[in-house]
Amino acid sequence: MELISENRVFGGWHKRYKHASQVNNCDMTFAVYLPEQIEHGKKVPVLYWLSGLTCNDENFMQKAGVFKYATDHGIAIVAPDTSPRGEGVADDPDGAYDFGLGAGFYVNATEAPFARHYNMYDYITKELPSLIEEHFPTSSKKSISGHSMGGHGALTIGLRNSLAYESISAFAPIVNPIDCPWGQKALSGYLGTNKSAWLEYDATELMKATAYARKLPIKIDQGNADQFLEAQLKPAHFLEAAKKNGYDVEFESHEGYDHSYFFISSFIEQHIAFHAMCLNEK
Amino acid sequence: MELISENRVFGGWHKRYKHASQVNNCDMTFAVYLPEQIEHGKKVPVLYWLSGLTCNDENFMQKAGVFKYATDHGIAIVAPDTSPRGEGVADDPDGAYDFGLGAGFYVNATEAPFARHYNMYDYITKELPSLIEEHFPTSSKKSISGHSMGGHGALTIGLRNSLAYESISAFAPIVNPIDCPWGQKALSGYLGTNKSAWLEYDATELMKATAYARKLPIKIDQGNADQFLEAQLKPAHFLEAAKKNGYDVEFESHEGYDHSYFFISSFIEQHIAFHAMCLNEK
Repeated sequence: MELISENRVFGGWHKRYKHASQVNNCDMTFAVYLPEQIEHGKKVPVLYWLSGLTCNDENFMQKAGVFKYATDHGIAIVAPDTSPRGEGVADDPDGAYDFGLGAGFYVNATEAPFARHYNMYDYITKELPSLIEEHFPTSSKKSISGHSMGGHGALTIGLRNSLAYESISAFAPIVNPIDCPWGQKALSGYLGTNKSAWLEYDATELMKATAYARKLPIKIDQGNADQFLEAQLKPAHFLEAAKKNGYDVEFESHEGYDHSYFFISSFIEQHIAFHAMCLNEK
Repeated sequence: MELISENRVFGGWHKRYKHASQVNNCDMTFAVYLPEQIEHGKKVPVLYWLSGLTCNDENFMQKAGVFKYATDHGIAIVAPDTSPRGEGVADDPDGAYDFGLGAGFYVNATEAPFARHYNMYDYITKELPSLIEEHFPTSSKKSISGHSMGGHGALTIGLRNSLAYESISAFAPIVNPIDCPWGQKALSGYLGTNKSAWLEYDATELMKATAYARKLPIKIDQGNADQFLEAQLKPAHFLEAAKKNGYDVEFESHEGYDHSYFFISSFIEQHIAFHAMCLNEK
């Protein structure tokens, strides 16, 4: 691992690292926030934050205003990049923002030319947590959250790995990618046209399909002035599936809020408190 | 005034505007945060935030995490651009980051070709406050703060207009521009080589020169791992002048913090509380 930069913030440290990823076959960059509690020899739990389309490891760390709350609750934050990058990594042929670089959709691609590098599902669920636990004073307790495409990632990864995480949250998530333009483009590009392969990457389908033995607490916030609400996000699809499955989901719609980090920063305090309650349980 | 964008945040509104500036002879962009208190018909006081080199109206609003505290205290925030911009506005001949566009240094330029557009001192002290008070539900009470070049702006503008403001604060300010490379380049470029003209734009010289009838409260925070501390910022020069003048300045040095917004976001809560105490006095 190569340290790219470090900044003191709210008594802790924000650090960016580059490392050679085995599962993605390229260098990957991530950011980590380590709260001051680690200086007293404490192992802290980790919240993984998955960002949305076009983002990298920096957006959340610079714009969410999360550090105060992470420090209040003694939680580390890990923010990975949203796709593989670098020489030889395939991109959208037209350079679109919603597929390819910056748009990995947290899946393991099976289609050429993406299958070689686009294995973000394995990266987030296996390689990155191993790396974090090896190199930083973190406990094995972890939760997962994200925004938009990253909210999709948090919900699908959390639901499929309910023993690995303590809680799931999302801001304005894409909850039903098989039924929206962003999702259909990404899933067909990464997984091919056989739609049965798409289902394990669709939060609404996952919610429909399984009788969950361990029901992780889920919290979702959504602005009702979000420009992507009706065409891409469709939270009602997920909520309906959860209701039918008897799975309680904490959902709140917020008057006047849009899809931006101004929305995320307004409610991140409650998300950190929500995860802290689960992560800091004895 | 033309509304560029608006976002709901922390119960209030972040809005960006463009307007034709008379003093700068070009269009200027600024951002304003209006806290939710205005919805109850309350006129709120204003904190003007002056940003540093290379910034525009967006950096502080996106990265400082200020909205929670502005809402807690019922304060509006106004973040202007750091220079005139647009077609016909002169820039550094070499396109350097520390002079010209994004580097107006909050002076009224007298040298060609800058004098026509670079009148940021009059813009901040006269034109912008008039515009704000005309268009928004703000009281006439205002304070001023800033970072680096903007800390220089806040200190010099506040000291020279002690009846117009209630308090001054700065993060990592350039306190003695006549004695550092950034300042010498800017002041000679905008004001010419007659150094007597520079003195009214130097916080340390202003602090030396005047027996202040109204001593505005001043708060300065500085990271001791700031990469610009010794060559450019030199806070000791200002503190020494203040001490000789019998002017109390609240100064704190912070172990391990650098020049970035990670530093600003870590201590912005205390700055807002400091200004609120002065702005919300009956």
